[in-house]
Amino acid sequence: MSITFADPTILSHDELEEGTAFAPRFDAQGLVTAVTTEAGSGRVLMVAHMNAQSLALTLETGEVHYWSRSRAKIWKKGESSGEIQKLIEMHTDCDQDVLLLTVEQTGRGAACHTGRKSCFYRIVKVDDGAVKLLDSGEPRLFDPKAVYGL
Amino acid sequence: MSITFADPTILSHDELEEGTAFAPRFDAQGLVTAVTTEAGSGRVLMVAHMNAQSLALTLETGEVHYWSRSRAKIWKKGESSGEIQKLIEMHTDCDQDVLLLTVEQTGRGAACHTGRKSCFYRIVKVDDGAVKLLDSGEPRLFDPKAVYGL
Repeated sequence: MSITFADPTILSHDELEEGTAFAPRFDAQGLVTAVTTEAGSGRVLMVAHMNAQSLALTLETGEVHYWSRSRAKIWKKGESSGEIQKLIEMHTDCDQDVLLLTVEQTGRGAACHTGRKSCFYRIVKVDDGAVKLLDSGEPRLFDPKAVYGL
Repeated sequence: MSITFADPTILSHDELEEGTAFAPRFDAQGLVTAVTTEAGSGRVLMVAHMNAQSLALTLETGEVHYWSRSRAKIWKKGESSGEIQKLIEMHTDCDQDVLLLTVEQTGRGAACHTGRKSCFYRIVKVDDGAVKLLDSGEPRLFDPKAVYGL
């Protein structure tokens, strides 16, 4: 990989928050949080993680790569499902430990492994002191059993 | 605090992902990731963390409380700056380790401690193999030196 990042530990607070050096603050596991939104609508599709290699691959190829914590490997989004994410834009936050991705969600338009567009298909509702989840009615765009054999 | 949450470790995979029990999967530090968006625009304002107490306080009071990792304490958003966040809606994701908050950002409308509306005010740009940050021109809505004495 040819893209490299600045070292956040040698930057001043002001350089980190106001400067032009891209210095992702990977955590103890070597990961940053990635929030992925849909181009056009701005809707939040999913939240995942990236290590340095998946971040570099994303910037180099224009296709989004995450780090799968459960499988402990690079995860090119859509490699199994066909739901590739094309990177349109990337932002970093003030202290450079979160990335905000704007993507075109290809395939059937489902970012979530359940077959829905977004992973955020349930609303947290408080009713008379009790908390429950309410399905927001987000449709499935594919059948996960057919796609993943789950 | 009166609001309590279900235990995710006793739920089946299907109950966790498709059920009505709200069972936040707090990590080893007792935290879930919270992505906060602006009501109306849907714009991502910030990303922070919540523990069980801050999550319960948020649902009970309708005002957003996070857990400050740097200060290791409950952090009512706006307690110093006046930039209170009123909770409009909350979603959870498929595996219940991320919360998506829709808020009305009160005060001067700045979620970021730098005085900007959003923490995502810099774009990651790749130019001829080198990566740099580009200021998106997001205006400051308050002067952080005046508000925090930084």
